[in-house]
Formats: sequence, C-alpha cells, structure tokens
Amino acid sequence: MADFRIYPQLLADGHYIGKLRLCHVLLHTNAVLPWFILVPETEVLDLLDLSDDLRRMAVDEAAVMAHFIKTTLGYHKINFASIGNVVPQLHLHVVGRSNGDPCWPAPVWGNLLAVRQYSSAELDRLTELLVRECSLHALERR
Amino acid sequence: MADFRIYPQLLADGHYIGKLRLCHVLLHTNAVLPWFILVPETEVLDLLDLSDDLRRMAVDEAAVMAHFIKTTLGYHKINFASIGNVVPQLHLHVVGRSNGDPCWPAPVWGNLLAVRQYSSAELDRLTELLVRECSLHALERR
Repeated sequence: MADFRIYPQLLADGHYIGKLRLCHVLLHTNAVLPWFILVPETEVLDLLDLSDDLRRMAVDEAAVMAHFIKTTLGYHKINFASIGNVVPQLHLHVVGRSNGDPCWPAPVWGNLLAVRQYSSAELDRLTELLVRECSLHALERR
Repeated sequence: MADFRIYPQLLADGHYIGKLRLCHVLLHTNAVLPWFILVPETEVLDLLDLSDDLRRMAVDEAAVMAHFIKTTLGYHKINFASIGNVVPQLHLHVVGRSNGDPCWPAPVWGNLLAVRQYSSAELDRLTELLVRECSLHALERR
C-alpha cells in the first residue's frame, strides 16, 4: 500500500522497528515492559472487521511477537488487545507481563506510571534479535 | 472436554449465555455496555499460545460476536482484548463501545464506574438474537 502512513500519535509513542509481512512493528518508548504495537497495513479500523485472511495474518504475526517476548525476553504472560478509542488507526498491543511488574496485575493502559527510556544499544539489540528470530524487515526508522 | 469448568470468578462477573463451537459465551453483568466474555474450551492460558487452528477459531468466533454488536446492537467500535492477569483461565473480551459512552475513550477495565443490571427479559431477548444470528447454542445457565 504505497500511500500507507502510520498515524503520528503512534510514531510519537513508539520506536519504529520494522515490518513483518502485514504489520509494521513499533516498540513503545517506555522500556519498563516489552510493549510492541503492530500496525497492519490496512485502512480497516477494527481488527474484527478485517477479512478472515487478513485478520488471521495479523493475529498470527502477533503470536510470533508473543512467542519472542516469552522465549527470548523471558516474560511468562502476554496481554493482547486492539482498542483504538483514542488513535483510530488499527493497531494491536502485544505486551509482556510478569507477576510483580510495575503495574501488575492492572492492564497497562493508563496504569503504567513507571517510565524508562531505551538506550540506542538496547534498540539495536532488540531489532537484531527480531530480524533473526521473527523475520522482521528492519526498515529505515520513520 | 468433559471436565472443562469455567472459573468461578468469570461466572460471578457474567451471565452464562451459551456456547459457540469453541467458546463459551458470557455476558458481563454490567449492562451499561455490551461486554461479552468468550471462554475457549482449552487449558491453554494465553490466546497467542493456542495452536494456529484453535487461535483462528477463537478469534473467528470473537469476530462473529463483534459483528453482532455492531450490526444488531448498533455500536460503532469494538474493543477486543485477552488479558487474564487476575483470572488466569483464557478469556476474550469483546466490548461494544461508542463515542460518549460512560467511560469513553478509556478502556473498560477499571474505568467503567457506571453500573446497570440486565433484566431477565433483556437477557432472554439477547440470547434469542444470538441463537438466531450467531448460531449460539443456548445451554442451561451455569
């Protein structure tokens, strides 16, 4: 989709990491938890309004990210959601959680008050791992 | 799965409505918004850990519920999530939202303070519609 653009609010909240087959991958700037935001390249606004094929592809890619968070980053629990009440563009949250993390057991939205920024080295390392383990295409950051 | 049991906390928070092919369907007792809770008959705890086939089936059933909420109940937006930090049994939230509803645009979890109960007539009517439009099997309420 040549003219597809990620909403500025999503790019403000996340580091652009690269693309899977359907979804662009952003990493929430708050490094307290591994919080990925997948943006499927579509104009449809609700995950459950996608065609069966695209919906399955989007959720399959979320499952790849979830597997990465669990096995490579060592988190035992995934919170998965598609909300989009504030930013209308379709985006999927895939968040690693652990018992005792800074807002456990509350959902992260509106409750994650602790803040830490990623270092450039951390971003490069995560991107490298995602390229190797999840077939991420690490494009120019937007 | 003969010995499958829905967690008491989910049954306390929701009216048992019936079953789709994979998922039991509960309706959150708070009638302020149409808030369905789908419980796939599995022992797996995270949606994104299900096998590809079961995950697709669960999300397909969530999409059927979302379509019902939009077209029959008239809500323009769906919030979809699988969290499970408090109740570990896998369950999917499919929630109808509308601009100006009692906690718009916040997510419902922890933010929906308004409360209304369903009447028996409302529950019967919703169940009847789900049987007709979503192929729900309306089992004995648990």
